[in-house]
Amino acid sequence: MGVATDFISIKTRGKTDIIDITADVCERLSGTGLAKGCVTVFVSGSTGGLTTIEYEPALVSDTKTFFDKLIPSNAPYAHDATWGDANGHSHLRSTLLGPSLTVPFVDGELTLGTWQQIIFIDFDNRPRNRKLILQFIGE
Amino acid sequence: MGVATDFISIKTRGKTDIIDITADVCERLSGTGLAKGCVTVFVSGSTGGLTTIEYEPALVSDTKTFFDKLIPSNAPYAHDATWGDANGHSHLRSTLLGPSLTVPFVDGELTLGTWQQIIFIDFDNRPRNRKLILQFIGE
Amino acid sequence: MGVATDFISIKTRGKTDIIDITADVCERLSGTGLAKGCVTVFVSGSTGGLTTIEYEPALVSDTKTFFDKLIPSNAPYAHDATWGDANGHSHLRSTLLGPSLTVPFVDGELTLGTWQQIIFIDFDNRPRNRKLILQFIGE
Repeated sequence: MGVATDFISIKTRGKTDIIDITADVCERLSGTGLAKGCVTVFVSGSTGGLTTIEYEPALVSDTKTFFDKLIPSNAPYAHDATWGDANGHSHLRSTLLGPSLTVPFVDGELTLGTWQQIIFIDFDNRPRNRKLILQFIGE
Repeated sequence: MGVATDFISIKTRGKTDIIDITADVCERLSGTGLAKGCVTVFVSGSTGGLTTIEYEPALVSDTKTFFDKLIPSNAPYAHDATWGDANGHSHLRSTLLGPSLTVPFVDGELTLGTWQQIIFIDFDNRPRNRKLILQFIGE
Repeated sequence: MGVATDFISIKTRGKTDIIDITADVCERLSGTGLAKGCVTVFVSGSTGGLTTIEYEPALVSDTKTFFDKLIPSNAPYAHDATWGDANGHSHLRSTLLGPSLTVPFVDGELTLGTWQQIIFIDFDNRPRNRKLILQFIGE
């Protein structure tokens, strides 16, 4: 049993930029030499989120549309009125989706479905450089 | 310390079918012989989700009503227009809820509340055979 | 490698009370002597949830407003009609947000961002005494 820590650095465009990080997580998993366990992917920061999706352009677009409608960028937020950040909507989307995703792996492979990819969503209202944490626990 | 992998196979009716899998997870936990740690329940696929609920018929109905209203099955989605799958809403609900749930166990028992059950929700628009992954990590 | 279990007891006011538990989680982490791994924070019960936020008063207010609007307390719910509990909305908010959060730690410190705090939200419609479970797995 052991713990292996790794990182993924990505540049995002912000504005609910939806990025497929599956290949990166798979590559880092291979590097650990672990056969079975779980990986937790985590974003340090309060304007991003992690989940899975069938990563194809139409669904990526539908997902952005959904968040834009549910938590509009141009609605009034106390956060924006107080701090002038204009990213109150980014924070709310992140809090709702959550900063963390845990995925099991077996025989050295993530247990994702064929049409299921791990995504990082950058909800902030500007481009960001992000460093995601990958914590692998297993044997 | 060790990792124990197990599976739950279930037939669902789809259409936001909400299934109580608590007894199955408890049974699999007993089989591992582990006393304390965490179990991650994961669905391979991008039209299901995991969470907890007080599993009683009225709340199960309220939960289905909530998702039907928040992300309607008959609204226009780019995914449906592109692929003709008619399950764009299923994907969005799954992405929002998330494919994974992690629950601690102590003294060989899940730390659930008395009125709290683990549920798998099948958001797809047709019956499915699902194989959920249970990854137990502990000692 | 090992597992360390700890607890946080808190009194809440209910009604989407949003409580910063970061300092408590940090303190418990120090007590474990573990350097790297993950902590899962879990609420036993079906009317609470865990996530992260930039914990400042305006965003705390925005988050409460968001949930009040998305899942109103005064809408009709089958749960309330059946049981007379008047907390159907509390259950739905909890099911949506999820009862669990997993955060990596490295070099004995949580990998949170500077403006990112761990929050417990008590969605119930009355004050509650809560005992959150912290399950640390690492080395």
